[in-house]
Amino acid sequence: MDMKRSGSRHIYRFGQAQAEGDGSMGEELGGKGASLAEMTRLGLPVPAGFTISTRACRFYLEHRTMPPSLEEELESALGWLELEQAQRLGGEKDPLLLSVRSGASISMPGMMDTILNIGINDGNIDGLAAKHQNITFALDSYRRLLQMFGSVVLQIPKHAFDHASEGASLGGEEASLRQRVASFQLLIEHISGKPFPMDPRAQLRQAVVAVFESWNNERARHYRRIHKTPENAGTAVTVQAMVFGNYGVNSGTGVGFTRNPSTGEKAMFAEFLANAQGEDIVAGIRTPMPIAELERTMPRVYKKLRTVTSRLEAHYRDVQDFEFTVQNGELFLLQTRAAKRSPLAKLRSAVEMAEEGLISRTEALLRVTPSDLDEVLSLQLDLSNAELQAIAKGLPASPGSAVGRVALTADRAVELAGKDKQSPIILVRQETNADDIHGMVAAVGFLTAHGGATSHAAVVGRGMGKCCITGAGEIVTDEVAGEVRIGVHILKEGDWLSLDGSTGRVFLGQLKLRPSESFDNPFLTKLLSWARERSVTALWANADTPQDAARASHARAMGIGLCRTEHMFFAKDRLAHIRSMILASTPGAREDALVSLLPQQQADFEELFRAMPGLPVTIRLIDPPLHEFLPTEVAAGEELAQARLQGADAEHIYRLEELLLRVQQLSESNPMMGLRGCRLGIVHPEIIVMQVRAILRAALRVKAEGTAVLPEIMVPLVACVEEVRFLRKLIEATAADLFSQEGRQIAYRVGVMIEVPRAAACADEIASEVDFMSFGTNDLTQLTFGFSRDDAHKYLGTYLELGILKHDPFVTIDRDGVGSLIRMAVRKAREANPEIKIGICGEHGGDQASIAFFEELGVDYVSCSPARLPMAQLSAAHTSIARGPVKTQQEKAPHRMQLVEGAGLSHGLPSQSPSIFRSSSPSAGSTSLA
Amino acid sequence: MDMKRSGSRHIYRFGQAQAEGDGSMGEELGGKGASLAEMTRLGLPVPAGFTISTRACRFYLEHRTMPPSLEEELESALGWLELEQAQRLGGEKDPLLLSVRSGASISMPGMMDTILNIGINDGNIDGLAAKHQNITFALDSYRRLLQMFGSVVLQIPKHAFDHASEGASLGGEEASLRQRVASFQLLIEHISGKPFPMDPRAQLRQAVVAVFESWNNERARHYRRIHKTPENAGTAVTVQAMVFGNYGVNSGTGVGFTRNPSTGEKAMFAEFLANAQGEDIVAGIRTPMPIAELERTMPRVYKKLRTVTSRLEAHYRDVQDFEFTVQNGELFLLQTRAAKRSPLAKLRSAVEMAEEGLISRTEALLRVTPSDLDEVLSLQLDLSNAELQAIAKGLPASPGSAVGRVALTADRAVELAGKDKQSPIILVRQETNADDIHGMVAAVGFLTAHGGATSHAAVVGRGMGKCCITGAGEIVTDEVAGEVRIGVHILKEGDWLSLDGSTGRVFLGQLKLRPSESFDNPFLTKLLSWARERSVTALWANADTPQDAARASHARAMGIGLCRTEHMFFAKDRLAHIRSMILASTPGAREDALVSLLPQQQADFEELFRAMPGLPVTIRLIDPPLHEFLPTEVAAGEELAQARLQGADAEHIYRLEELLLRVQQLSESNPMMGLRGCRLGIVHPEIIVMQVRAILRAALRVKAEGTAVLPEIMVPLVACVEEVRFLRKLIEATAADLFSQEGRQIAYRVGVMIEVPRAAACADEIASEVDFMSFGTNDLTQLTFGFSRDDAHKYLGTYLELGILKHDPFVTIDRDGVGSLIRMAVRKAREANPEIKIGICGEHGGDQASIAFFEELGVDYVSCSPARLPMAQLSAAHTSIARGPVKTQQEKAPHRMQLVEGAGLSHGLPSQSPSIFRSSSPSAGSTSLA
Repeated sequence: MDMKRSGSRHIYRFGQAQAEGDGSMGEELGGKGASLAEMTRLGLPVPAGFTISTRACRFYLEHRTMPPSLEEELESALGWLELEQAQRLGGEKDPLLLSVRSGASISMPGMMDTILNIGINDGNIDGLAAKHQNITFALDSYRRLLQMFGSVVLQIPKHAFDHASEGASLGGEEASLRQRVASFQLLIEHISGKPFPMDPRAQLRQAVVAVFESWNNERARHYRRIHKTPENAGTAVTVQAMVFGNYGVNSGTGVGFTRNPSTGEKAMFAEFLANAQGEDIVAGIRTPMPIAELERTMPRVYKKLRTVTSRLEAHYRDVQDFEFTVQNGELFLLQTRAAKRSPLAKLRSAVEMAEEGLISRTEALLRVTPSDLDEVLSLQLDLSNAELQAIAKGLPASPGSAVGRVALTADRAVELAGKDKQSPIILVRQETNADDIHGMVAAVGFLTAHGGATSHAAVVGRGMGKCCITGAGEIVTDEVAGEVRIGVHILKEGDWLSLDGSTGRVFLGQLKLRPSESFDNPFLTKLLSWARERSVTALWANADTPQDAARASHARAMGIGLCRTEHMFFAKDRLAHIRSMILASTPGAREDALVSLLPQQQADFEELFRAMPGLPVTIRLIDPPLHEFLPTEVAAGEELAQARLQGADAEHIYRLEELLLRVQQLSESNPMMGLRGCRLGIVHPEIIVMQVRAILRAALRVKAEGTAVLPEIMVPLVACVEEVRFLRKLIEATAADLFSQEGRQIAYRVGVMIEVPRAAACADEIASEVDFMSFGTNDLTQLTFGFSRDDAHKYLGTYLELGILKHDPFVTIDRDGVGSLIRMAVRKAREANPEIKIGICGEHGGDQASIAFFEELGVDYVSCSPARLPMAQLSAAHTSIARGPVKTQQEKAPHRMQLVEGAGLSHGLPSQSPSIFRSSSPSAGSTSLA
Repeated sequence: MDMKRSGSRHIYRFGQAQAEGDGSMGEELGGKGASLAEMTRLGLPVPAGFTISTRACRFYLEHRTMPPSLEEELESALGWLELEQAQRLGGEKDPLLLSVRSGASISMPGMMDTILNIGINDGNIDGLAAKHQNITFALDSYRRLLQMFGSVVLQIPKHAFDHASEGASLGGEEASLRQRVASFQLLIEHISGKPFPMDPRAQLRQAVVAVFESWNNERARHYRRIHKTPENAGTAVTVQAMVFGNYGVNSGTGVGFTRNPSTGEKAMFAEFLANAQGEDIVAGIRTPMPIAELERTMPRVYKKLRTVTSRLEAHYRDVQDFEFTVQNGELFLLQTRAAKRSPLAKLRSAVEMAEEGLISRTEALLRVTPSDLDEVLSLQLDLSNAELQAIAKGLPASPGSAVGRVALTADRAVELAGKDKQSPIILVRQETNADDIHGMVAAVGFLTAHGGATSHAAVVGRGMGKCCITGAGEIVTDEVAGEVRIGVHILKEGDWLSLDGSTGRVFLGQLKLRPSESFDNPFLTKLLSWARERSVTALWANADTPQDAARASHARAMGIGLCRTEHMFFAKDRLAHIRSMILASTPGAREDALVSLLPQQQADFEELFRAMPGLPVTIRLIDPPLHEFLPTEVAAGEELAQARLQGADAEHIYRLEELLLRVQQLSESNPMMGLRGCRLGIVHPEIIVMQVRAILRAALRVKAEGTAVLPEIMVPLVACVEEVRFLRKLIEATAADLFSQEGRQIAYRVGVMIEVPRAAACADEIASEVDFMSFGTNDLTQLTFGFSRDDAHKYLGTYLELGILKHDPFVTIDRDGVGSLIRMAVRKAREANPEIKIGICGEHGGDQASIAFFEELGVDYVSCSPARLPMAQLSAAHTSIARGPVKTQQEKAPHRMQLVEGAGLSHGLPSQSPSIFRSSSPSAGSTSLA
């Protein structure tokens, strides 16, 4: 046997522990051919054979004829195989039988064709029976050959064979099989116009051509289109000596996995079917037995299978999906490949293999994708009941599942949730807005009639890690009647509904939720600890409440990158104060209202600081337009009208009139670009003073408890450097005032959120004035595209459909546009202030492709919602690994921590220099955070 | 006389047609000293004298003592002057008398001091009288010396001299003058503690020091602060032999202009006062006579004055403002300088001087500023009624005029403005603050009792381009009573008031606004034709209607840069069709509605094309959100409610319900970033098809009339290159379809409007797909800042007041932010497509500073409203002149026109290449525009 590879050859042999090909030759030999060559080289029991390369297929497909040299190579290979097997193709006594299987370089399971038992004909069927002393086996094999050849090579519909079989059930097994063989031969001649070829070489040649042709069959083309695999790769054909699982009770066939493909548990998971060939399992005609059956009936074979598959896993360093046949107590392997497995199994097997030393931690990290983790961590509906039918379908806006009782207004959601803690709530609305936040907090999932993947409900859902389906057009809510119509169904508030956030389907009733894996899954915990070791970019979390912060801390966030203080205002006890602040007619009255808010904000901040000891906590100053804290104009108008109708007292009516007036005054044409963000703080500095006092008082208090506190104050929606200068002065003056009152100090940082294109364009100027900047990619995307997130659903669908956009830019960062602005801004900022810390805190922080981009940019941290943190940590590790050896975040961290701890020490007048940590006094040594 | 200049000298002499200094030495000699030296050199009659340089003043102000060498130089100069005049300072018989005048390099009229008649004392008063045989003259001169010396040198209040004069009116003129001289001497000794110095040299030295000191007096410092002139330049002092206008009836003094300073008419405009010294005119004690009086009484002097001033104008090549004195029939010039004149006079004199050959056209262009043209062309109060009296006067804080009804609170202003759109509002407040902004938006002008040129009202007024008068102390408002007292007048809210923002005067009642100069002013027409010859950047106009286009053509726009087609839809007959288009429930029904709109749009476009023969007309496809064509939700709701109340028929109610529903469906959170611009055309392509058909059918029709038509189709609000590709295909397919139907073709261009930051960032990709791009700077500013133009008034006032912004970015382009994006986009676009034509079509197109910026960027054209076109044309010329010789727009034009005319000829497949002009067919030769 010539082991030399030649560029012009088309056939590669394997047998007797030697092979002309190997596992690396998938492109030429297909996955199956390469794995058979490799297994042969490993000395594993593989029936001998040879593989006709994909090159031959490509030649055939292009020229509609076989390569000229192939015939000779084929004869030579056949001769070799006859010698190996000591059998002759077409021999009368003990004929060599062959299997012909397709095998492309990329797995296309079930897409192309297989023909078994090539070599049987009328002339050797009796010899075959005699050799094996089994006429049933011989006839069954012939019957299978005729059936497969007829359907695959001659394109005779399968049902024609079923029909031809029908009359053949009388007169015992042999007679029945003989009848079927005869009727199949008649069928073939009748339909194809030619008799079944008795020449085994003709059978083989036609079978090879049929496999080549199957590359272009409907199913295969469709598969390639969907899976975006190359059109012109072609398939290889493996010709192998037959082994027979249908040889009798000591025979059989099986498939299996070296580890459990659902759970990842390290235990062989396989099924076995006695006295059967592989396609019997595939066709589902007979139900296979658990592998324990093999252990019971053929303990020797079972033991060998364990040994062999363990070798396979060790050799391939991955979970294997294998096929085997037992012929008369002898084990043969027919296929091995990397096993498809559940996300959970991927996670567990990757971690365990790394711990077994089989693979490196890097490999383990790369074997699990962030979306695997997404699936692992989300709740899923139990959809096993086959009769279940969705009553509506919307956009899968936020994954996960939710089962709960219907509530049609936010207030009602809060009310229902309060009544019965055990029954979760699903908020069903035409669409949601900021007024619904308390209801969304109370609910486990949201379902809306309008809005897309970027609507308010969707964004809040993803932010809260709650299931959300938007744009389910069949829904019409009637809050007054307390009813919602979904298609033909009418549900009342309190009725049960189930949402499948991964597909956007809505189900009637209370479906079961399959328990998904928790954050505490030990394999997850381990993998993420490795991920953090490998990431260059630190992962922080967005946390608006102490509860969020606790979750972030649990998920090992390296800091809080965004605390939206105003979310604290929406709590009912605070909303009253914020409203009186807004309704105040003088700065004095406004300050009074703010004084009432201060202790509440301070208490929240204290909890945040306690949850993140020794880690930075970035608190964003008030951001949304004030009217978000007031009722809508319609609501305020209705309340006033009702009060008048009911003859309420003059004082009450006056207050409602004032409220309506203020609502009208505050209403804006484009609130996204209105009086909000740092503009609020410039027009109403007293709000900033209150917030800064609350932050620093909280920091002082928690520090006094012995906890290291690193407060970072972030100014939102900056457009001009002068805004930054103005507010920095205000913040520093407020801090100095507080510190002198309290007689104590604490170091803090001042930074900005870059959300406005102008701020990105002028990042150099702004960078010189701050300690850190964080890109708010949501608003930056809105303004860079001019796409209002609340309205974009009106055209984003069309855009994605027409291919005008490849991705929703609110989900995956737009590299070309928004990304190029961020890239420019990072460069300018670092040039102007090399000490500056740069982060990301939009929704994109939880998106894998976006994280890769941010890491390329070299930002210091990416902050996302705690629920997305595991995915983000893994994404960051993947990106770092792909980029090769650079300083990881853990290697860099000591340096950064040192800077933090020495904060304020080396700066004479911190307010004038871009110091890392500001302090109000030159003698800030005492404010060290150590 | 030593004519050599020396670096260390302090004194420069002039006399007898020779001078040590000249007109170029303003910095050392001050404006007055330099002009006297220059006039002397010209041989004009100037009394001899010398100028002590500003260097000496600076030395004095720094060291509080005179430069060491000055005393010697002064003695030498005095000796020379005594020789020249054949008189002796302090001589008993015919003493040399001197004037001492300040003169800084930058004119500070009336800010510093003058002392005349230095040299008289008790010892020579009689000699002086005898020499001139005029005791009255001598005593009057002495009295003047004492008074000026006392007030200027010794700082004795002027009213003290008035008081001391009171008793001196008895006993004839001579006795009275003698009494005044005596009492002034007593007054001086009494108040200053020292007698009046009888030593003429002491008088001179003290006078010089006093002039030096006057540099730092309160008035001068204030003047310099306001006019931002350097603090340390110092003043020169000119010492000159006295000539006497108070010598008798053959004497006198006068001031004048070589041309009319109001109208610019070429006719000397001067006034004369017989028997008087200069300060008598300045002080307003006596009323001067028209110069005709001089012609009548002293024809020879008059004739000489004409000759001399003509020479002055010819020499200085500018309108001169001169002072002269006639002493006993002999003419002396005391001062000449460039005349301050009205914008209209600037315009006329510049043009006429250029035509006279006195100055070049470039100089003429530079002598008129765009804001001069603005004033010339803007509406002004008609103050021709001589009986008009201002009822109050404040600071002219923001120019322009305003006539409107009084409102005393911001809310009331909004309310009154809402009630009657026809009657504008003037907001009258004690002072304004940020809470008044909504009222300021509603008003056309502001009047406040308090505040200066930098108060809130002033800053906001200038920012908004609205007339504002501040600090009108006579005003007392009473918001509760709804009354305001202005002096003796009491006005109620709703009463009419007129403001003249250029002078700060307030008038009762509804004055007329004078139609200012028309576009047809022949001097304007001429200047602008020169401006167009000199500009590198072509000026185009925005025109939405055929009327606008006619105005643009009249103002010589080189093209239409922006026709907002939707403005045509708002016409009542069209609104019905556009509404049925929006309300259509199927694409078919929508197309039916569009079919009705097509002929109307086509007719409009035909008129546009006829108005701009041979010039490009850029038509923007539909841009605003569709809900702008529908009533508001409140209005639609009210109409429906009323119809129900009135029991309208079911059909009608159904239609109103549909309307309300559609209004609700179309309502958006942030319409500026919603479904509008090219997004509309992608979601509803049938609208684009209609518009393109209308444009090209109109073009074909007007072309068939023999008019050259250059249609340019502009796609608005582009964010991604794929949008452009999609719509370009749609436009080309529509055109091809139309051309084949009609059997005729026409060349057209396809371009985009760059209004979204992302489009600027990706300008290279987009440029490769289009023939032109035009920056829509309004929306680009909104999105780059994240400032909604409709809402920004809530904070822009505060921003301007605090200096966070220097200009309203919607008025003057923001160079650092928006400008840097445009700069980047222009560079990228030109690199990607060197043939691309780049323009500007925002409101900034009419702003001078913005035009300078656009020209620096090298855009091909700037388009502004027809009303701003003159200012824009002049600005563009100024910028081109300042940048030095580059190809002007007229020099470049032939090249561009050639490209246009050859359009489509050289391009095989125009749609695949960035051709200048697209055509649907390769045989587009027949579609040439020639």
